[in-house]
Amino acid sequence: MSPTFDKVDTVAINTIRLLAVDATIKANSGHPGAPMGLAPVAHVLFNKFMSFNPKNPKYFNRDRFVLSNGHGCMLLYALLHLYGYDLSLDDLKNFRQLGSKTPGHPEAADTPGVEVTTGPLGQGVSNAVGLAMAQAHFAARFNKPGYDLFTNYTYAIMGDGCVMEGVASEASSAAGHLQLGNLIVFYDDNHISIDGDTAQALTEDVLKKYEAYGWQTLWVKDGDNDLAGIAAAIEEAKACKNKPTIIKVTTTIGFGSKLQGTHGVHGNPLKKDDAAHVKELFGFNPNESFVVPQEVYDLCSTTAAAGAADEEAWNQLLEKYSAEYPELAVDLKSRVAGTLPEGWEKSLPVYTPADPAIASRKLSETVLNALGDVVPQLIGGSADLTGSNYTRWKTAVDFQPPSTGFGDYSGRYIRYGVREHGMGAMMNGLAAYGGLIPFGGTFLNFVSYAAGAVRLSALSEIPVIWVATHDSIGLGEDGPTHQPIETLAHFRATPNIMVWRPADGNECSAAYKVSMTSKHTPSILALSRQNLPQLEGSTIEKASKGGYVLKEVADANITIVSTGSEVGLSLDATKILESKGYKARLVSLPDWFTFDKQSLDYKLSVFPDGHPIMSVEVMTTLGWQKYSHEQFGINTFGASGPYLQVYAKFGFTPEGIAERAEKTIAAYKGVSPRSPLHIAF
Amino acid sequence: MSPTFDKVDTVAINTIRLLAVDATIKANSGHPGAPMGLAPVAHVLFNKFMSFNPKNPKYFNRDRFVLSNGHGCMLLYALLHLYGYDLSLDDLKNFRQLGSKTPGHPEAADTPGVEVTTGPLGQGVSNAVGLAMAQAHFAARFNKPGYDLFTNYTYAIMGDGCVMEGVASEASSAAGHLQLGNLIVFYDDNHISIDGDTAQALTEDVLKKYEAYGWQTLWVKDGDNDLAGIAAAIEEAKACKNKPTIIKVTTTIGFGSKLQGTHGVHGNPLKKDDAAHVKELFGFNPNESFVVPQEVYDLCSTTAAAGAADEEAWNQLLEKYSAEYPELAVDLKSRVAGTLPEGWEKSLPVYTPADPAIASRKLSETVLNALGDVVPQLIGGSADLTGSNYTRWKTAVDFQPPSTGFGDYSGRYIRYGVREHGMGAMMNGLAAYGGLIPFGGTFLNFVSYAAGAVRLSALSEIPVIWVATHDSIGLGEDGPTHQPIETLAHFRATPNIMVWRPADGNECSAAYKVSMTSKHTPSILALSRQNLPQLEGSTIEKASKGGYVLKEVADANITIVSTGSEVGLSLDATKILESKGYKARLVSLPDWFTFDKQSLDYKLSVFPDGHPIMSVEVMTTLGWQKYSHEQFGINTFGASGPYLQVYAKFGFTPEGIAERAEKTIAAYKGVSPRSPLHIAF
Repeated sequence: MSPTFDKVDTVAINTIRLLAVDATIKANSGHPGAPMGLAPVAHVLFNKFMSFNPKNPKYFNRDRFVLSNGHGCMLLYALLHLYGYDLSLDDLKNFRQLGSKTPGHPEAADTPGVEVTTGPLGQGVSNAVGLAMAQAHFAARFNKPGYDLFTNYTYAIMGDGCVMEGVASEASSAAGHLQLGNLIVFYDDNHISIDGDTAQALTEDVLKKYEAYGWQTLWVKDGDNDLAGIAAAIEEAKACKNKPTIIKVTTTIGFGSKLQGTHGVHGNPLKKDDAAHVKELFGFNPNESFVVPQEVYDLCSTTAAAGAADEEAWNQLLEKYSAEYPELAVDLKSRVAGTLPEGWEKSLPVYTPADPAIASRKLSETVLNALGDVVPQLIGGSADLTGSNYTRWKTAVDFQPPSTGFGDYSGRYIRYGVREHGMGAMMNGLAAYGGLIPFGGTFLNFVSYAAGAVRLSALSEIPVIWVATHDSIGLGEDGPTHQPIETLAHFRATPNIMVWRPADGNECSAAYKVSMTSKHTPSILALSRQNLPQLEGSTIEKASKGGYVLKEVADANITIVSTGSEVGLSLDATKILESKGYKARLVSLPDWFTFDKQSLDYKLSVFPDGHPIMSVEVMTTLGWQKYSHEQFGINTFGASGPYLQVYAKFGFTPEGIAERAEKTIAAYKGVSPRSPLHIAF
Repeated sequence: MSPTFDKVDTVAINTIRLLAVDATIKANSGHPGAPMGLAPVAHVLFNKFMSFNPKNPKYFNRDRFVLSNGHGCMLLYALLHLYGYDLSLDDLKNFRQLGSKTPGHPEAADTPGVEVTTGPLGQGVSNAVGLAMAQAHFAARFNKPGYDLFTNYTYAIMGDGCVMEGVASEASSAAGHLQLGNLIVFYDDNHISIDGDTAQALTEDVLKKYEAYGWQTLWVKDGDNDLAGIAAAIEEAKACKNKPTIIKVTTTIGFGSKLQGTHGVHGNPLKKDDAAHVKELFGFNPNESFVVPQEVYDLCSTTAAAGAADEEAWNQLLEKYSAEYPELAVDLKSRVAGTLPEGWEKSLPVYTPADPAIASRKLSETVLNALGDVVPQLIGGSADLTGSNYTRWKTAVDFQPPSTGFGDYSGRYIRYGVREHGMGAMMNGLAAYGGLIPFGGTFLNFVSYAAGAVRLSALSEIPVIWVATHDSIGLGEDGPTHQPIETLAHFRATPNIMVWRPADGNECSAAYKVSMTSKHTPSILALSRQNLPQLEGSTIEKASKGGYVLKEVADANITIVSTGSEVGLSLDATKILESKGYKARLVSLPDWFTFDKQSLDYKLSVFPDGHPIMSVEVMTTLGWQKYSHEQFGINTFGASGPYLQVYAKFGFTPEGIAERAEKTIAAYKGVSPRSPLHIAF
């Protein structure tokens, strides 16, 4: 039955508009225009269509909502307040203030009811694709006749900015391919961006583009007033089961303001007199601010109560389901609880020095083969480098629309296409759904394409995993265009992200172990193309500390610290140094982030006072000064050629390392340097 | 007159195919499939349509060619060899070998005839948009009745990978808006990517998408054999003056191989017997390699000679033009020579401490206002943040198709749209055309969206300029989603790029001065949203060294080193320290890259031995260990709130800095530390 609309609906819509007006005026900062234009769409959607429980924002089968144009966040904050999430009127009054739950852009880690962190344009709609993929997967895995446990839709609103961003193009194209009928995106067609008239830069036919992507396309021509039209479009969208839908909603930015329809209302609060004008226009008292008529609260609480009842019914259904499908129910409940199958880590491969040298990308494949069936939460794939990243485990089924003949939605291997940035944002959505551990493969150098999404994984505390192979000049012939130099430094400098570069099999297992048990921190696994020997002295346990002494000697002349493919070379270098009468310790430091969290005592046992420390890594030296006195690295671009020749060109041989170590020892003769870990504050 | 095709054309096409087969076999590495499939298109284009002079690869009105699927570079290397560029058969035999001119992906800085560096997917076609924009601009500025000096076309080939990349979507949408009739892109529709059948990930209707972007779309259904069809499509594309054209060419990857049409020929050399099979099929001796029939050389040299004649005619036309339009000719010739107008730098603004505090984004605007009319090479804009980046100078005219009513092609202000990555790649194309200094504005945090393009600016030695405002937590209310923490470290770790963070007006002028005279190094200018005082002791000359002593004292207890908005705060901190009886020096280090190039003596005069050095910057501390013993920074994400409160929250006040300086001095009591600039090797 289609919803009907009363006067109170208009009051509710205008309340949302005015909360955005008031909050941005009080903050003297922010974006009122989009909330004012989008209030009708948002109201119809939240009030008449969505199922959610504000008292439990994590209710698993809730409809998801993403505000991709995150600068319009007062729209979302107003809604969350009206429906009874833990966001008070005072929180709205603290919009954009230090320590508030209402920051300048929505942050999932800070505000209950915010599904994903948005603001950086194009991300939200791409997260929405991931959320919809997750729903399709859960439905395919868990739904049974009579048990429609997973029925939720994912809704997103995006503006012209998102439409222009490449990441959104990538994810939208993927969504069309994946036939995600559970995804409904509103495109706020308001003709205005920060520079003014969008006709200055955006003349593409947006709906036609989405049609080309394989989406259903709809258009509500009067998004300011036509509530029934909005509702009808949503109904049509929901009815289309094998295509995502984009609903273009033509709106007036800053609706009601004297400056409506101009970029004057985009990123600046309304002037006082204009605010009074809008309030009078909407029948509100021009002298009052932050007003919510009781009838609006009542209207919203009815919807909220319905959502709570939905959750109650869902919980009861789940209990019945548990009796009928006990194994699936155990899996499902552990996902809801965020736990992994008991004892899963026992499947992690363990190596001894007797095992052959293996590329760490291949070691990673062995981990995935070991865990693919043991950890059903694992879901991932590659940005069209499956045969290079070794991301597909043997028993994997592709996550695909059944009609393609390539797989089905219960599958967990994702063909992301050559869409690194989209992959990063889709992974964020998959993880945000809950109960999944998403991973994505590409070359390490091209994780940079996805930097915008990686940063949001870290900021919003979403533990996705990048399987980043071909991690250095060691990829050889592909050359400088593909050889990372700055990439590890970039991500090591990013807060809250692990950057693992395992040196052998045990370290690779450790990297997966720590990454998969991480609750709030994403990780990048930097993996080699070339073979690496299994090292004496490495264990999963030691490597899980992020760094450890691989080779200890008393009265050392030098400590060499290294990562990944250079640890084995450095070990050989210590032998050369020994043959020359030097005593050299060797530290393996696969992940700085994890190491930094260890106790100072432990860290000083790894990097003690009294002798020089030299770092060895075939990348930029930038940042290594944190742990070492001297740095051996590459501060230029790489070279194309067979990898051993490229390594030799830059001096990365046991002999080349030993030579620099000798110079380091000489430079520190008679000096007893302090460990770089001592800091003054 | 449409070209006709003889048997020799087929021989030429097969020669190209076999050179790719032989080179990848010899290298035991590389991608034969795309060259084998694309040889017909490439031959028709190079032999029958393009104008270029292999003896002067930089002939200014040459047609540009971009191989966006750079992994197929043996196609390009084969062509460059056949037409007589400085690339010998031995160079082809050295494909993918160390030090060769034929690296694994085409590098503009290494190989004559390679216009732009490609391989990272999506970049080349986006560069092509920039190249076409440059042509449109030169034509609008310089062409006069009877003087069609700028008539060249830009051609590009892209594969499915480029089609999927967001950066290509952004640039392609922009190209449609800009109505670039001089841009012709071939889409190699071969149904194969590394993962196999593209139907696994790419089911969008590519031509329809490009139609939505505003392109003309054509389709050659038999790209393996239909040379006349290819030629007809190119003619139709050239005839369309107000739209770019995409020509979908359906080809067979690895044409002729036993594995043709599969991903087995994508990234692996052919097996020996398969190579023999292909050679026999094409009428070549299966036992010979790297064979070029003389008739093929002859065919190609005819085209090359025609190109040389074109250049000769162009030079004569330019001489006539010089007589009739002497001022324009002076401008044009200085562009061809790569020089700037005499004395341009005298227009750079100079400040004294009596001048008011001004945000460095505003200082940047003052520079652009001063130089807009003085340096006609300047061409740039913003990714839809004009009013925030302050990138538009007062007299600017928009670079727009005249039919939009917003400007014309002689304009130099570019509305990039919300397309940061596309902007970066388009800038690379603009710069690669020659005679232009492109700049692009966005928030510093979103330069990361364009990391893939920035890296290629650095690698291919293209001096573009990023105007990166809102450079820190100092942007305040927008919050952590917009506040860079890792960004400067990321780009400081990238080889061959300047990262300027000016502290005041003189430093801002210095940043522009060095960036605009740079021939081989791009730059990022990190600029503040908040006001910064004009500092005593700053000069353009000193700042042009990248770092200098802003405040010198004898027998210092500490040196504070800082950048940008924290220099003024640090200066105040030195006064607090003085009041407590400490002697504090202050160093401003606006650009590490430039500073690192100074003499060791100079650098040690800035960072001397004997007392501790503490860095102060409101970002990650990572990397600052290179210049300092102690680091004051922010290794978490930022916060949303008024900027002074955000600064105070993290301790970045004169008092907070002084407090850390005192702790540093205390920690180094009785120690005479060495300058971190001493290195052992």
